[in-house]
Amino acid sequence: MKSGLSFLIAALRSEIDELDQLSRMSELVGTIGRLVHALQRERGISNVLLASGGQRFVAERTAQIAECATLEQTVRERFDALEADPRRLGNSARLFSRIAWVVPGLDALPALRQRVGGLKMPATEATSAFVKVVAGLLAVVFEAADGATDPEISRLLVAMFNFMQGKELAGQERACGAAAFASGQNDAARQQQWLHLIESQERCFQVFSEFSGPELEAQWLAHLPPAQTAELERLRRIACAAPAGVALDADLSPLWFDCCTHRIDAMQIVEERLADDLRQLCSAKIARARTDLQTHESLLTQIAHAPPAAPAAFFEQPATPLFAASPAHGAPPYGRQLERSILDMVQDQSQRLQAMSDELDTVRASLNERKLVERAKGLLMAHRRMTEAEAHKMLRQTAMNQNRRLIDVAESVLAMAEYLPASGKA
Amino acid sequence: MKSGLSFLIAALRSEIDELDQLSRMSELVGTIGRLVHALQRERGISNVLLASGGQRFVAERTAQIAECATLEQTVRERFDALEADPRRLGNSARLFSRIAWVVPGLDALPALRQRVGGLKMPATEATSAFVKVVAGLLAVVFEAADGATDPEISRLLVAMFNFMQGKELAGQERACGAAAFASGQNDAARQQQWLHLIESQERCFQVFSEFSGPELEAQWLAHLPPAQTAELERLRRIACAAPAGVALDADLSPLWFDCCTHRIDAMQIVEERLADDLRQLCSAKIARARTDLQTHESLLTQIAHAPPAAPAAFFEQPATPLFAASPAHGAPPYGRQLERSILDMVQDQSQRLQAMSDELDTVRASLNERKLVERAKGLLMAHRRMTEAEAHKMLRQTAMNQNRRLIDVAESVLAMAEYLPASGKA
Repeated sequence: MKSGLSFLIAALRSEIDELDQLSRMSELVGTIGRLVHALQRERGISNVLLASGGQRFVAERTAQIAECATLEQTVRERFDALEADPRRLGNSARLFSRIAWVVPGLDALPALRQRVGGLKMPATEATSAFVKVVAGLLAVVFEAADGATDPEISRLLVAMFNFMQGKELAGQERACGAAAFASGQNDAARQQQWLHLIESQERCFQVFSEFSGPELEAQWLAHLPPAQTAELERLRRIACAAPAGVALDADLSPLWFDCCTHRIDAMQIVEERLADDLRQLCSAKIARARTDLQTHESLLTQIAHAPPAAPAAFFEQPATPLFAASPAHGAPPYGRQLERSILDMVQDQSQRLQAMSDELDTVRASLNERKLVERAKGLLMAHRRMTEAEAHKMLRQTAMNQNRRLIDVAESVLAMAEYLPASGKA
Repeated sequence: MKSGLSFLIAALRSEIDELDQLSRMSELVGTIGRLVHALQRERGISNVLLASGGQRFVAERTAQIAECATLEQTVRERFDALEADPRRLGNSARLFSRIAWVVPGLDALPALRQRVGGLKMPATEATSAFVKVVAGLLAVVFEAADGATDPEISRLLVAMFNFMQGKELAGQERACGAAAFASGQNDAARQQQWLHLIESQERCFQVFSEFSGPELEAQWLAHLPPAQTAELERLRRIACAAPAGVALDADLSPLWFDCCTHRIDAMQIVEERLADDLRQLCSAKIARARTDLQTHESLLTQIAHAPPAAPAAFFEQPATPLFAASPAHGAPPYGRQLERSILDMVQDQSQRLQAMSDELDTVRASLNERKLVERAKGLLMAHRRMTEAEAHKMLRQTAMNQNRRLIDVAESVLAMAEYLPASGKA
């Protein structure tokens, strides 16, 4: 028969196991971030190569492909290691399912590169192929964030996911604008798509700011020099505020590209920093939990040799409400162990776990919000044959008109899914 | 380098692991249910013994203590087995913490029994000691339900937790009424407490009905013969609707006790049935998942010997929205495997997992609701020195006055926690 203290220790061991796994997930997310960045660069380079009829960026592309291959190797090794590890996070089925989705995408990269190298596909098609692989990789990051069981780590993972997503949208905006300026004109559909990319980006960076903490946010802002932001906004205005069909100055094309590229490279620096913070946070938490565990275990040994406490103490403790999450005790946590009853320790642990679980719910709410909005958009796209930008605009417009939050409108759309007309394709 | 199919299989294996663990948790919950029932009987018997000055139920009590000890042994063995098993559910830290809380309560039972046997404590004190142990056991059941990752199993576990909680409240109501009738009078505080027990019970059985499915609900209703319900309601009315302080007919005491006991024994039958259903559901799900796994694994062998598919297929697939949860495919799931691409299988799996996760959110919402209401009550009890019944009444009254849901009022209370006056005890 095991004692209460043994189960207290088991709870602590479970926490350490989870932290270990979160630490591995955080490493994976950092690795995925680097691969995504390399693929984003390859996407840009491939576009220029295709647009220039194979004249420009040939050597750059070879170097970039080599870098991508190295990083892809690292990511795949981490995927394989996850699969080989018998320990599992709570949402591992969904995580593996996401990995199962993106691995064929990685498998298909060599064939894609061959077609790009042979100039056998239009730039837009190459772009969407890369977009798809990046989306698959980001879906893995999403599950990593969604499966985190520690609120502080979850916070950083949510910040990271949103930052990566914002960066990807910035990359798509660069491609969208480059195509517009290079062609010397913009049409209404592209304008709408462009505005959608801007708005979605801003939403991502907003969530990032909310969850990353003041220090990282400050670093991010420091990487946005006002002159560069002004230039970016000027070019956006020229292209998006002009009436559709008006000619654009093709000479602005390299200016646009450089301006966006500077911004995206700055993002990569912030992202690396975020990945570092995540690593350090995991290590610090694991170290702390291990110290606690040692203390508990030595206490267990002491108690095994001490005379048993009066068992009726259980009934003399004041009753705790089942889900109480009271503020942390003022007393030092494990200062005078043998004098504090084990029941106090259990109560402290239980309240700490409850508080963590509550905070986690708050952090996850932001992921859930994104999920619902994306699904409502998907529904509108399928049933009303809209583009993503149109679906997003419709949701936003409804929210503004009805003075409701975007998430509430998304929920209503999903709730009335059955009433939507079937797609015209059927 | 592992293929997409390997990760598809890893996802399926994770699902099976989780189902295995849920199956163990369901067994544990069933065992806890039996121990709780035995402790509830011991509580009733102990009350009679103490009230009769040691004259009545001496032999019954000895037999009942022996039954409790056997069942306690089984529960403890399952606790120990959980601790020894390296596999963990997502919320295992909280689960172990709850177990760590209740084990000292079980340790303290012999001392409690000694005092009861020596007639050395008032009946009310003995009752609250048993109430506390039962509450600790139910908290373990709550975590089991909260940690379930399969929506159908989670549904039954939520039904089970609510039924067990309702049954415990019915037991407390029996004790409350027995004390009132035996003493020949009722006061305002006890009336309020009594009404609170009735209302909380009804809420529990309502959630049970919502989650248990029509068959179990029908079985539950079949166990409530109208004549018995009428008798129960009549006795409740006599005691609770009368002006406080008016004398009660002490001869109604055994009538009340028998009426409640019949009802509680019927609950135990339904609870056993629920535990059976849970066991069967787990087995069926595990069997189904194992069959799927076999199919996938043999497919993996076939594919290893087949020429590789054109990898570019990845880019030809229509893009799926990241969080799509479309209705299940009409085609048989694994009928013509080699003809269906693995990507289709990944997509199916991913959508199935997403749909499960969405449904799980719905089921868990009910647990979360209870958690918030309980915590808001706890807050009011601490800050305004209210009894649980008073706190509940205040929340309910506010909800009615403001035409809001109880859960919304509870959330408001928690959100304004800092503005509440400090407890007078400070």
